[in-house]
Amino acid sequence: MTVPKTLEDLIEEFKKLPGVGRKTAERYAMFIINKYTIDEVHQFSEVLEDAKTKLHQCSVCGNLTDEDKCYICQDNFRDLSTILVVENAKDVFSIEKASEYKGLYHVLNGVVSPMDGMGPEDINLESLWKRVINDQVKEIIIATSSTPEGETTALYIKRVLQETDILVSRIGYGVPVGLNLEYADDLTLSKAIENRKKIS
Amino acid sequence: MTVPKTLEDLIEEFKKLPGVGRKTAERYAMFIINKYTIDEVHQFSEVLEDAKTKLHQCSVCGNLTDEDKCYICQDNFRDLSTILVVENAKDVFSIEKASEYKGLYHVLNGVVSPMDGMGPEDINLESLWKRVINDQVKEIIIATSSTPEGETTALYIKRVLQETDILVSRIGYGVPVGLNLEYADDLTLSKAIENRKKIS
Repeated sequence: MTVPKTLEDLIEEFKKLPGVGRKTAERYAMFIINKYTIDEVHQFSEVLEDAKTKLHQCSVCGNLTDEDKCYICQDNFRDLSTILVVENAKDVFSIEKASEYKGLYHVLNGVVSPMDGMGPEDINLESLWKRVINDQVKEIIIATSSTPEGETTALYIKRVLQETDILVSRIGYGVPVGLNLEYADDLTLSKAIENRKKIS
Repeated sequence: MTVPKTLEDLIEEFKKLPGVGRKTAERYAMFIINKYTIDEVHQFSEVLEDAKTKLHQCSVCGNLTDEDKCYICQDNFRDLSTILVVENAKDVFSIEKASEYKGLYHVLNGVVSPMDGMGPEDINLESLWKRVINDQVKEIIIATSSTPEGETTALYIKRVLQETDILVSRIGYGVPVGLNLEYADDLTLSKAIENRKKIS
Protein backbone atom coordinates (compact mmCIF):
# COMPACT_ATOMS: atom_id res chain seq x y z
CA MET A 1 0.00 0.00 0.00
CA THR A 2 1.42 3.37 -0.96
CA VAL A 3 -1.61 5.56 -0.24
CA PRO A 4 -3.52 5.72 3.09
CA LYS A 5 -6.82 3.83 2.87
CA THR A 6 -9.00 6.89 3.51
CA LEU A 7 -7.33 8.67 0.60
CA GLU A 8 -7.48 5.58 -1.62
CA ASP A 9 -11.24 5.37 -0.96
CA LEU A 10 -11.70 8.97 -2.07
CA ILE A 11 -9.59 8.41 -5.21
CA GLU A 12 -11.72 5.36 -6.02
CA GLU A 13 -14.91 7.43 -5.63
CA PHE A 14 -13.66 10.08 -8.05
CA LYS A 15 -12.56 7.37 -10.50
CA LYS A 16 -16.20 6.31 -10.86
CA LEU A 17 -17.05 9.65 -12.53
CA PRO A 18 -17.19 9.58 -16.34
CA GLY A 19 -13.84 10.14 -18.07
CA VAL A 20 -11.89 10.29 -14.81
CA GLY A 21 -8.75 8.14 -14.68
CA ARG A 22 -6.37 7.44 -11.82
CA LYS A 23 -4.27 10.61 -12.28
CA THR A 24 -7.26 12.96 -12.40
CA ALA A 25 -8.91 11.22 -9.45
CA GLU A 26 -5.69 11.64 -7.42
CA ARG A 27 -5.61 15.31 -8.39
CA TYR A 28 -9.21 15.88 -7.26
CA ALA A 29 -8.64 13.99 -4.00
CA MET A 30 -5.44 15.87 -3.13
CA PHE A 31 -7.17 19.14 -3.97
CA ILE A 32 -10.00 18.34 -1.55
CA ILE A 33 -7.53 17.40 1.18
CA ASN A 34 -5.21 20.35 0.71
CA LYS A 35 -7.51 23.21 -0.23
CA TYR A 36 -10.90 22.49 1.37
CA THR A 37 -11.86 23.38 4.92
CA ILE A 38 -13.92 20.86 6.88
CA ASP A 39 -16.97 23.10 6.36
CA GLU A 40 -16.46 23.12 2.60
CA VAL A 41 -16.19 19.33 2.50
CA HIS A 42 -19.31 19.12 4.64
CA GLN A 43 -21.13 21.36 2.18
CA PHE A 44 -19.95 19.25 -0.77
CA SER A 45 -21.22 16.04 0.80
CA GLU A 46 -24.52 17.68 1.75
CA VAL A 47 -25.07 19.00 -1.79
CA LEU A 48 -24.33 15.52 -3.15
CA GLU A 49 -26.92 13.89 -0.93
CA ASP A 50 -29.44 16.66 -1.57
CA ALA A 51 -29.10 16.31 -5.33
CA LYS A 52 -29.84 12.62 -5.14
CA THR A 53 -32.66 12.77 -2.59
CA LYS A 54 -34.44 15.96 -3.69
CA LEU A 55 -34.24 15.81 -7.48
CA HIS A 56 -36.90 13.76 -9.26
CA GLN A 57 -38.92 13.82 -12.44
CA CYS A 58 -41.49 16.58 -13.01
CA SER A 59 -44.96 15.09 -12.61
CA VAL A 60 -46.06 16.62 -15.92
CA CYS A 61 -43.17 16.45 -18.38
CA GLY A 62 -40.52 14.21 -16.81
CA ASN A 63 -37.93 17.01 -16.59
CA LEU A 64 -35.59 17.08 -13.59
CA THR A 65 -36.91 19.19 -10.71
CA ASP A 66 -36.76 19.60 -6.96
CA GLU A 67 -40.43 20.65 -6.77
CA ASP A 68 -43.59 18.85 -7.92
CA LYS A 69 -43.65 20.53 -11.34
CA CYS A 70 -40.52 21.76 -13.10
CA TYR A 71 -40.01 25.50 -13.57
CA ILE A 72 -41.03 25.27 -17.24
CA CYS A 73 -44.36 23.59 -16.51
CA GLN A 74 -44.91 26.22 -13.80
CA ASP A 75 -44.15 29.09 -16.18
CA ASN A 76 -47.34 30.88 -17.30
CA PHE A 77 -45.69 32.55 -20.28
CA ARG A 78 -44.93 29.37 -22.19
CA ASP A 79 -46.59 28.51 -25.48
CA LEU A 80 -48.85 25.61 -24.48
CA SER A 81 -49.50 24.50 -28.05
CA THR A 82 -46.04 23.03 -28.69
CA ILE A 83 -44.25 20.17 -26.94
CA LEU A 84 -40.61 19.42 -27.70
CA VAL A 85 -39.75 15.78 -26.99
CA VAL A 86 -36.18 15.11 -25.78
CA GLU A 87 -34.32 12.10 -24.46
CA ASN A 88 -33.16 13.50 -21.14
CA ALA A 89 -33.18 16.53 -18.85
CA LYS A 90 -29.74 17.65 -20.02
CA ASP A 91 -31.21 18.27 -23.50
CA VAL A 92 -33.76 20.61 -21.92
CA PHE A 93 -30.98 22.63 -20.29
CA SER A 94 -29.09 22.82 -23.61
CA ILE A 95 -32.12 24.05 -25.54
CA GLU A 96 -33.10 26.48 -22.78
CA LYS A 97 -29.60 27.93 -22.85
CA ALA A 98 -30.18 28.93 -26.48
CA SER A 99 -33.28 30.88 -25.19
CA GLU A 100 -35.03 30.51 -28.53
CA TYR A 101 -37.74 27.93 -27.89
CA LYS A 102 -40.74 29.12 -25.85
CA GLY A 103 -42.97 26.02 -25.80
CA LEU A 104 -43.18 23.08 -23.40
CA TYR A 105 -41.03 19.97 -23.14
CA HIS A 106 -41.52 16.27 -22.66
CA VAL A 107 -38.54 14.33 -21.32
CA LEU A 108 -38.55 10.63 -22.25
CA ASN A 109 -35.74 9.69 -19.86
CA GLY A 110 -34.55 7.09 -22.36
CA VAL A 111 -35.06 5.87 -25.93
CA VAL A 112 -36.69 2.85 -27.51
CA SER A 113 -33.82 0.38 -27.85
CA PRO A 114 -34.77 -3.25 -28.48
CA MET A 115 -31.07 -4.23 -28.23
CA ASP A 116 -31.03 -3.06 -24.57
CA GLY A 117 -34.49 -4.44 -23.90
CA MET A 118 -36.00 -0.94 -23.75
CA GLY A 119 -39.50 -0.88 -25.24
CA PRO A 120 -41.86 2.12 -25.57
CA GLU A 121 -43.41 1.16 -22.21
CA ASP A 122 -40.04 1.60 -20.45
CA ILE A 123 -39.72 5.29 -21.26
CA ASN A 124 -41.87 8.26 -20.25
CA LEU A 125 -44.38 8.00 -23.14
CA GLU A 126 -47.63 7.14 -21.33
CA SER A 127 -47.81 10.66 -19.87
CA LEU A 128 -47.12 12.17 -23.31
CA TRP A 129 -50.26 10.52 -24.74
CA LYS A 130 -52.24 11.89 -21.77
CA ARG A 131 -50.91 15.41 -22.36
CA VAL A 132 -51.78 15.16 -26.05
CA ILE A 133 -55.41 14.23 -25.26
CA ASN A 134 -56.00 16.69 -22.43
CA ASP A 135 -53.99 19.78 -23.33
CA GLN A 136 -54.30 22.23 -26.19
CA VAL A 137 -51.32 20.73 -28.03
CA LYS A 138 -51.00 21.51 -31.74
CA GLU A 139 -47.45 20.42 -32.53
CA ILE A 140 -45.01 17.83 -31.21
CA ILE A 141 -41.38 18.50 -32.17
CA ILE A 142 -39.25 15.40 -31.76
CA ALA A 143 -35.64 16.18 -30.80
CA THR A 144 -34.34 12.71 -29.96
CA SER A 145 -30.78 12.19 -31.17
CA SER A 146 -30.04 11.00 -34.70
CA THR A 147 -28.91 7.55 -33.58
CA PRO A 148 -30.82 4.40 -34.69
CA GLU A 149 -32.51 4.35 -31.25
CA GLY A 150 -33.41 8.04 -31.43
CA GLU A 151 -34.83 7.58 -34.94
CA THR A 152 -36.84 4.51 -33.85
CA THR A 153 -38.30 6.47 -30.96
CA ALA A 154 -39.19 9.38 -33.26
CA LEU A 155 -40.86 7.02 -35.72
CA TYR A 156 -42.81 5.31 -32.94
CA ILE A 157 -44.19 8.62 -31.65
CA LYS A 158 -45.09 9.68 -35.20
CA ARG A 159 -46.98 6.39 -35.76
CA VAL A 160 -48.98 6.62 -32.52
CA LEU A 161 -49.97 10.21 -33.23
CA GLN A 162 -50.72 9.88 -36.96
CA GLU A 163 -54.46 9.40 -36.37
CA THR A 164 -54.67 12.70 -34.45
CA ASP A 165 -54.68 16.27 -35.83
CA ILE A 166 -51.38 17.01 -34.14
CA LEU A 167 -48.51 18.07 -36.36
CA VAL A 168 -45.50 15.87 -35.60
CA SER A 169 -42.14 17.33 -36.69
CA ARG A 170 -38.47 16.47 -36.30
CA ILE A 171 -35.75 19.05 -35.54
CA GLY A 172 -33.55 20.00 -38.49
CA TYR A 173 -30.24 18.26 -39.02
CA GLY A 174 -27.38 19.84 -40.88
CA VAL A 175 -23.97 21.43 -40.65
CA PRO A 176 -23.56 23.29 -37.31
CA VAL A 177 -23.51 27.06 -37.66
CA GLY A 178 -19.93 28.34 -37.73
CA LEU A 179 -18.40 24.97 -38.55
CA ASN A 180 -16.13 24.71 -41.56
CA LEU A 181 -17.49 22.13 -44.06
CA GLU A 182 -14.29 20.07 -43.95
CA TYR A 183 -14.90 19.25 -40.28
CA ALA A 184 -18.45 17.97 -40.76
CA ASP A 185 -18.85 14.19 -40.90
CA ASP A 186 -20.32 12.44 -43.96
CA LEU A 187 -23.71 11.70 -42.45
CA THR A 188 -24.18 15.28 -41.32
CA LEU A 189 -23.20 16.51 -44.78
CA SER A 190 -25.70 14.16 -46.45
CA LYS A 191 -28.41 15.32 -44.04
CA ALA A 192 -27.48 18.95 -44.69
CA ILE A 193 -27.83 18.51 -48.46
CA GLU A 194 -31.11 16.61 -48.01
CA ASN A 195 -32.42 19.42 -45.77
CA ARG A 196 -31.44 22.18 -48.23
CA LYS A 197 -33.61 25.29 -48.46
CA LYS A 198 -34.34 27.61 -51.34
CA ILE A 199 -32.68 30.99 -50.88
CA SER A 200 -35.42 33.58 -51.03
CA MET B 1 -33.08 29.81 -14.07
CA THR B 2 -32.74 26.86 -16.40
CA VAL B 3 -31.43 24.24 -13.95
CA PRO B 4 -33.09 23.27 -10.63
CA LYS B 5 -31.26 24.82 -7.68
CA THR B 6 -30.28 21.49 -6.11
CA LEU B 7 -28.64 20.46 -9.38
CA GLU B 8 -27.03 23.86 -9.88
CA ASP B 9 -25.48 23.57 -6.39
CA LEU B 10 -23.96 20.21 -7.28
CA ILE B 11 -22.61 21.55 -10.60
CA GLU B 12 -21.06 24.47 -8.71
CA GLU B 13 -19.39 22.06 -6.27
CA PHE B 14 -17.84 20.04 -9.09
CA LYS B 15 -16.72 23.25 -10.81
CA LYS B 16 -14.49 23.97 -7.81
CA LEU B 17 -12.31 20.94 -8.63
CA PRO B 18 -9.09 21.69 -10.54
CA GLY B 19 -9.49 21.79 -14.33
CA VAL B 20 -13.24 21.23 -14.23
CA GLY B 21 -15.32 23.62 -16.32
CA ARG B 22 -19.08 24.02 -16.62
CA LYS B 23 -19.56 21.21 -19.18
CA THR B 24 -17.55 18.64 -17.21
CA ALA B 25 -19.24 19.66 -13.96
CA GLU B 26 -22.65 19.17 -15.60
CA ARG B 27 -21.55 15.76 -16.87
CA TYR B 28 -20.41 14.66 -13.40
CA ALA B 29 -23.59 15.97 -11.77
CA MET B 30 -25.91 14.26 -14.28
CA PHE B 31 -23.92 11.05 -13.92
CA ILE B 32 -24.42 11.13 -10.14
CA ILE B 33 -28.14 11.79 -10.52
CA ASN B 34 -28.77 9.21 -13.24
CA LYS B 35 -26.41 6.36 -12.36
CA TYR B 36 -25.90 6.43 -8.59
CA THR B 37 -28.19 4.80 -6.06
CA ILE B 38 -28.92 6.69 -2.84
CA ASP B 39 -26.55 4.30 -1.04
CA GLU B 40 -23.73 5.04 -3.48
CA VAL B 41 -24.19 8.78 -3.04
CA HIS B 42 -24.24 8.28 0.70
CA GLN B 43 -20.96 6.36 0.46
CA PHE B 44 -19.40 9.09 -1.71
CA SER B 45 -20.30 11.82 0.79
CA GLU B 46 -19.07 9.71 3.70
CA VAL B 47 -15.73 9.01 2.01
CA LEU B 48 -15.36 12.75 1.32
CA GLU B 49 -15.91 13.67 4.95
CA ASP B 50 -13.67 10.84 6.16
CA ALA B 51 -10.81 11.92 3.93
CA LYS B 52 -10.91 15.44 5.31
CA THR B 53 -11.43 14.52 8.98
CA LYS B 54 -9.20 11.43 9.26
CA LEU B 55 -6.21 12.31 7.10
CA HIS B 56 -3.47 14.41 8.70
CA GLN B 57 0.31 14.74 8.65
CA CYS B 58 2.49 11.92 9.95
CA SER B 59 3.95 12.99 13.30
CA VAL B 60 7.45 12.01 12.14
CA CYS B 61 7.83 12.89 8.47
CA GLY B 62 4.81 15.02 7.54
CA ASN B 63 3.49 12.49 5.00
CA LEU B 64 -0.29 12.07 4.68
CA THR B 65 -1.69 9.35 6.95
CA ASP B 66 -4.83 8.26 8.77
CA GLU B 67 -2.81 6.86 11.72
CA ASP B 68 -0.29 8.56 14.03
CA LYS B 69 2.73 7.57 11.94
CA CYS B 70 2.55 6.96 8.18
CA TYR B 71 3.06 3.43 6.85
CA ILE B 72 6.60 4.25 5.75
CA CYS B 73 7.70 5.45 9.19
CA GLN B 74 6.04 2.32 10.63
CA ASP B 75 7.87 0.02 8.21
CA ASN B 76 10.77 -1.82 9.91
CA PHE B 77 12.47 -2.74 6.65
CA ARG B 78 13.29 0.79 5.57
CA ASP B 79 16.84 2.11 5.29
CA LEU B 80 17.00 4.54 8.24
CA SER B 81 20.17 6.25 7.04
CA THR B 82 18.60 8.10 4.09
CA ILE B 83 15.87 10.73 4.07
CA LEU B 84 14.38 11.94 0.80
CA VAL B 85 12.92 15.44 1.12
CA VAL B 86 9.87 16.21 -1.05
CA GLU B 87 7.43 19.09 -1.34
CA ASN B 88 4.20 17.20 -0.74
CA ALA B 89 2.65 13.82 -0.03
CA LYS B 90 1.79 13.26 -3.69
CA ASP B 91 5.53 13.15 -4.47
CA VAL B 92 5.90 10.33 -1.93
CA PHE B 93 3.20 8.32 -3.73
CA SER B 94 4.90 8.93 -7.09
CA ILE B 95 8.33 7.79 -5.84
CA GLU B 96 6.84 4.82 -3.98
CA LYS B 97 5.08 3.74 -7.16
CA ALA B 98 8.49 3.36 -8.83
CA SER B 99 9.39 0.93 -5.93
CA GLU B 100 13.09 1.76 -6.21
CA TYR B 101 13.83 3.91 -3.19
CA LYS B 102 13.94 2.10 0.19
CA GLY B 103 14.83 4.92 2.61
CA LEU B 104 12.66 7.33 4.58
CA TYR B 105 10.92 10.53 3.51
CA HIS B 106 10.41 14.01 4.82
CA VAL B 107 7.44 15.93 3.44
CA LEU B 108 7.83 19.73 3.61
CA ASN B 109 4.19 20.47 2.74
CA GLY B 110 5.34 23.57 0.91
CA VAL B 111 8.43 25.38 -0.38
CA VAL B 112 10.32 28.47 0.67
CA SER B 113 8.75 31.20 -1.45
CA PRO B 114 9.43 34.81 -0.35
CA MET B 115 7.04 36.03 -3.08
CA ASP B 116 4.15 34.24 -1.37
CA GLY B 117 5.39 35.14 2.10
CA MET B 118 6.45 31.54 2.79
CA GLY B 119 9.64 31.44 4.87
CA PRO B 120 11.56 28.37 6.10
CA GLU B 121 9.55 28.53 9.36
CA ASP B 122 6.27 28.09 7.45
CA ILE B 123 7.13 24.66 6.08
CA ASN B 124 7.81 21.38 7.84
CA LEU B 125 11.57 21.92 8.42
CA GLU B 126 11.79 22.12 12.24
CA SER B 127 11.05 18.41 12.53
CA LEU B 128 13.66 17.63 9.84
CA TRP B 129 16.42 19.22 11.95
CA LYS B 130 15.23 17.14 14.93
CA ARG B 131 15.34 13.94 12.90
CA VAL B 132 18.83 14.79 11.67
CA ILE B 133 20.11 15.22 15.25
CA ASN B 134 18.35 12.23 16.82
CA ASP B 135 18.31 9.58 14.15
CA GLN B 136 21.10 7.69 12.41
CA VAL B 137 20.78 9.75 9.21
CA LYS B 138 23.73 9.70 6.80
CA GLU B 139 22.27 11.23 3.66
CA ILE B 140 19.57 13.76 2.82
CA ILE B 141 18.38 13.60 -0.80
CA ILE B 142 16.54 16.76 -1.79
CA ALA B 143 13.82 16.15 -4.38
CA THR B 144 12.02 19.50 -4.38
CA SER B 145 10.96 20.56 -7.86
CA SER B 146 13.35 22.44 -10.16
CA THR B 147 11.42 25.72 -9.88
CA PRO B 148 13.08 28.81 -8.34
CA GLU B 149 11.19 28.07 -5.08
CA GLY B 150 12.24 24.42 -5.11
CA GLU B 151 15.87 25.40 -5.72
CA THR B 152 15.78 28.01 -2.95
CA THR B 153 14.43 25.43 -0.53
CA ALA B 154 17.12 22.92 -1.55
CA LEU B 155 19.84 25.55 -1.08
CA TYR B 156 18.46 26.51 2.32
CA ILE B 157 18.51 22.92 3.56
CA LYS B 158 22.05 22.46 2.20
CA ARG B 159 23.24 25.60 4.05
CA VAL B 160 21.70 24.59 7.38
CA LEU B 161 23.23 21.13 7.20
CA GLN B 162 26.67 22.08 5.86
CA GLU B 163 28.21 22.12 9.36
CA THR B 164 27.10 18.50 9.96
CA ASP B 165 28.61 15.25 8.58
CA ILE B 166 25.46 14.52 6.65
CA LEU B 167 25.77 14.15 2.89
CA VAL B 168 23.23 16.42 1.21
CA SER B 169 22.41 15.51 -2.40
CA ARG B 170 19.93 16.63 -5.05
CA ILE B 171 18.08 14.20 -7.34
CA GLY B 172 19.34 14.03 -10.92
CA TYR B 173 17.70 16.10 -13.64
CA GLY B 174 17.81 15.14 -17.28
CA VAL B 175 15.84 13.85 -20.23
CA PRO B 176 13.06 11.47 -19.09
CA VAL B 177 13.74 7.82 -19.97
CA GLY B 178 11.92 6.88 -23.17
CA LEU B 179 11.39 10.46 -24.31
CA ASN B 180 12.58 11.46 -27.74
CA LEU B 181 15.10 14.34 -27.52
CA GLU B 182 13.03 16.58 -29.77
CA TYR B 183 10.24 16.67 -27.16
CA ALA B 184 12.48 17.72 -24.26
CA ASP B 185 12.45 21.42 -23.36
CA ASP B 186 15.57 23.58 -23.49
CA LEU B 187 16.15 23.74 -19.73
CA THR B 188 15.87 19.97 -19.37
CA LEU B 189 18.30 19.48 -22.26
CA SER B 190 20.83 21.89 -20.68
CA LYS B 191 20.47 20.07 -17.34
CA ALA B 192 20.89 16.72 -19.09
CA ILE B 193 24.14 17.84 -20.74
CA GLU B 194 25.39 19.34 -17.47
CA ASN B 195 24.58 16.07 -15.66
CA ARG B 196 26.33 13.90 -18.26
CA LYS B 197 28.06 10.72 -17.07
CA LYS B 198 31.09 8.90 -18.42
CA ILE B 199 30.12 5.64 -20.11
CA SER B 200 32.02 2.91 -18.32
